[in-house]
Amino acid sequence: MEPVSTTNFDLYDIVVSGSEEELKNLNKVVLQGWVRTNRDNGSIGFIEFNDGTYFKNVQLVYSNSSKNYDLLRSLKTGSAISILGSVRLTPENKQPFEIVVDDCSLEGDVDDDYPLQKKRHSFEFLREIAHLRPRANTFQAVYRVRSVLSYAIHEFFQERGFIYVHTPEITTNDGEGAGNVFDVTTHDTKDLFSFYGRKVNLTVTGQLHVEPFALAFRDVYTFGPVFRAEHSNTVRHASEFWMIEPEMAFCDLNDNMDVIEDCVKYCINYLLEACPDEMNFFNSMIDNTLLERLKHVANSEFKKMTYTEGIEILKNAVKSGVKFENSDIFWGMDLQSEHERYLTEKVINGPLFLIDYPSEIKAFYMRLNDDGKTVAACDLLVPNVGELVGGSQREERYNLLKEKMDKLGITQELDWYLDTRRYGGCKHSGFGIGFDRLLMYVTGMQNIRDVQPYPRTSNSIKY
Amino acid sequence: MEPVSTTNFDLYDIVVSGSEEELKNLNKVVLQGWVRTNRDNGSIGFIEFNDGTYFKNVQLVYSNSSKNYDLLRSLKTGSAISILGSVRLTPENKQPFEIVVDDCSLEGDVDDDYPLQKKRHSFEFLREIAHLRPRANTFQAVYRVRSVLSYAIHEFFQERGFIYVHTPEITTNDGEGAGNVFDVTTHDTKDLFSFYGRKVNLTVTGQLHVEPFALAFRDVYTFGPVFRAEHSNTVRHASEFWMIEPEMAFCDLNDNMDVIEDCVKYCINYLLEACPDEMNFFNSMIDNTLLERLKHVANSEFKKMTYTEGIEILKNAVKSGVKFENSDIFWGMDLQSEHERYLTEKVINGPLFLIDYPSEIKAFYMRLNDDGKTVAACDLLVPNVGELVGGSQREERYNLLKEKMDKLGITQELDWYLDTRRYGGCKHSGFGIGFDRLLMYVTGMQNIRDVQPYPRTSNSIKY
Repeated sequence: MEPVSTTNFDLYDIVVSGSEEELKNLNKVVLQGWVRTNRDNGSIGFIEFNDGTYFKNVQLVYSNSSKNYDLLRSLKTGSAISILGSVRLTPENKQPFEIVVDDCSLEGDVDDDYPLQKKRHSFEFLREIAHLRPRANTFQAVYRVRSVLSYAIHEFFQERGFIYVHTPEITTNDGEGAGNVFDVTTHDTKDLFSFYGRKVNLTVTGQLHVEPFALAFRDVYTFGPVFRAEHSNTVRHASEFWMIEPEMAFCDLNDNMDVIEDCVKYCINYLLEACPDEMNFFNSMIDNTLLERLKHVANSEFKKMTYTEGIEILKNAVKSGVKFENSDIFWGMDLQSEHERYLTEKVINGPLFLIDYPSEIKAFYMRLNDDGKTVAACDLLVPNVGELVGGSQREERYNLLKEKMDKLGITQELDWYLDTRRYGGCKHSGFGIGFDRLLMYVTGMQNIRDVQPYPRTSNSIKY
Repeated sequence: MEPVSTTNFDLYDIVVSGSEEELKNLNKVVLQGWVRTNRDNGSIGFIEFNDGTYFKNVQLVYSNSSKNYDLLRSLKTGSAISILGSVRLTPENKQPFEIVVDDCSLEGDVDDDYPLQKKRHSFEFLREIAHLRPRANTFQAVYRVRSVLSYAIHEFFQERGFIYVHTPEITTNDGEGAGNVFDVTTHDTKDLFSFYGRKVNLTVTGQLHVEPFALAFRDVYTFGPVFRAEHSNTVRHASEFWMIEPEMAFCDLNDNMDVIEDCVKYCINYLLEACPDEMNFFNSMIDNTLLERLKHVANSEFKKMTYTEGIEILKNAVKSGVKFENSDIFWGMDLQSEHERYLTEKVINGPLFLIDYPSEIKAFYMRLNDDGKTVAACDLLVPNVGELVGGSQREERYNLLKEKMDKLGITQELDWYLDTRRYGGCKHSGFGIGFDRLLMYVTGMQNIRDVQPYPRTSNSIKY
């Protein structure tokens, strides 16, 4: 029987849930991957082997009767190898099977200064070797979940008929005017105007560009990189990250919140189903409340509370002795993470939409409520994190929107955006999810630098 | 019976392929969308209505006995409306059904200067209104296919276990050194070094960053924006576009070509299946050889030819009287589009991999063949376009790679990239597909400005 070329993933799949027939065909196999550890007692040796296709290692067993025994026993952590062997079921052991090695060849050797030796490494250390850390257990889990979560996002929206729009990275406007932007220039000249004939910067949001598509396709979304040139050296800020920004025509704030709730639940359930090994790993190694927390959110009905109600509750909390870093609670203030967490954790004990924020503290494009002082915004707050998603119904009334834009002095620059309110511009809403923060939330990872492939933070760039 | 809120897509879906039961439930419906055209003869009127969920319009019929008749007859092209009506099957007509309007409300009016009136508009004109053109037929088709094709790409790779990696947009290197890069600075200072402490630019390729992930996960891909600050004012060049870059460990040039062939065929078949209306539209309105051409590629076995063989064939063609703009054919030259098209159209009449290019005209990371002068590169050439995909086996041998990098003076800057050859760096290969050019290819659209949502080309930026 010819040997079958296979992978860690396929081996576990067939041994755990395959048929007798499939298992029989797996007698002689060829595997290609990397040595995680190798120990040899002089007559028998064991290699923990991983080819990157599955979170779990495969155990290779060799002996002094194996062909290439000298090569096998000399294999170092990190070596790339190709092996021929037979599958032996080991139902009595921790792992359900092992591979008895017949032959081995070395596909890529490892220099002695290989930094990923068997011992445990700190995340700080691993950050310095972003090109090698994907081989470490935690990062195998993080980056696989990152990939699966990206796909879950696409699946969620595509299955519901949303059109994916690639909004531009280079743009002439700075979105909400919220943060500092990166300027884009051409090589050597440093002339901001030379290439496009206009000053341009990297985008901070795709929302303004995607709204016109919602007014043509009804339901649309962006999912791409955005940028902030802020010198915030915190565990939650990066200067480059991915944003998910859906936008829906004929959709009000309540419809919007329904989609947010569905989307967050879908992502959590998707990961629990598609990445059980990785999610269990995070739960045991990173945050042992993770699975409980996520399942609680997936099974909760998301509650709603107005900002005004929230302020009253916080004021009463302070009166009754609750301590905040900032205890000066007043209507019109920007809530801090501690306030948001108090509301979602102590008051509600579950996911909470805080809605109808004061107009002054929210972006110009949000729809003014009938009270004339709040806007139809919603922030989704979740226990342990605070804000996870921000959304709003957009101001579709030309005059009200233009008045706000005039005040900000952006009417001319964004004339095309205002156009959409003159030409069949109907009620519409949308929201934004910072993908990297969502990933931190679902993995329990505490530093945004540890969920991005090559993190971009101020004063730090190597790759 | 309560009216059912529905969409163009669902209506066509149920009328064309739904059950009796589903159809019965669709008696009274609510629709929300936009007026494409409205004509009224004084007693009966017809609105071509589209809500963006489906390529085909729905015909609304009203009469002077409809509620809000005066509103209905006054509706202008582009208005957003909400209507209540009943489904009437019209199997004898061109469209299989129409909606008899009971009532209508205006959700968003249209100013009289609305530029998208019923008449046909040139692509040049529509380019000036990138925020409105998604409402035009051609762009409804283009952007829906863009979204579906993006999803097809993700599905292709995710189903095969590839890990999606978000490689960074801001980087310290300029990839292959192929084109001019955009520099990134912080606001006002114009100081290239101020933010990251190092000079940075926008990425031209994700490949160098994704290779280390292939050496950890085996099969990986990127799909994100890349940039070129080239002043090429052609129909095929944009300064910002999306690239798909898969990378596979334990994969040689032949395996690589198998994946390219599978991927291209998968995309074509996916679109023919998922977007029949849009693809038929392109075939009748944009390029009437499109479907034939795509089906031919989907059903062809992709052929292979070495660059050296290609040069011989081109030399003989010139001798026998074939005219090229550049008829000076010699080994070592960079082939022009006319040469590539001659080979794929006249010689092969189908998709052709041209392989084993001279080392001097290809990137430094490509693997040197045993002949010492060619590299294991493959360009996929297709009729009507020329190059569609470029790939190679990567140089995994440390000394050979370092020698080339030393010559280019990039060894220090890319020390981390070179590292991957010292630490279990095995045979690996990958390829790149310019997503926007692939989209041009599958739609027949001739100008890259007409397949991007907000095209970015030199001297032109408005949004």
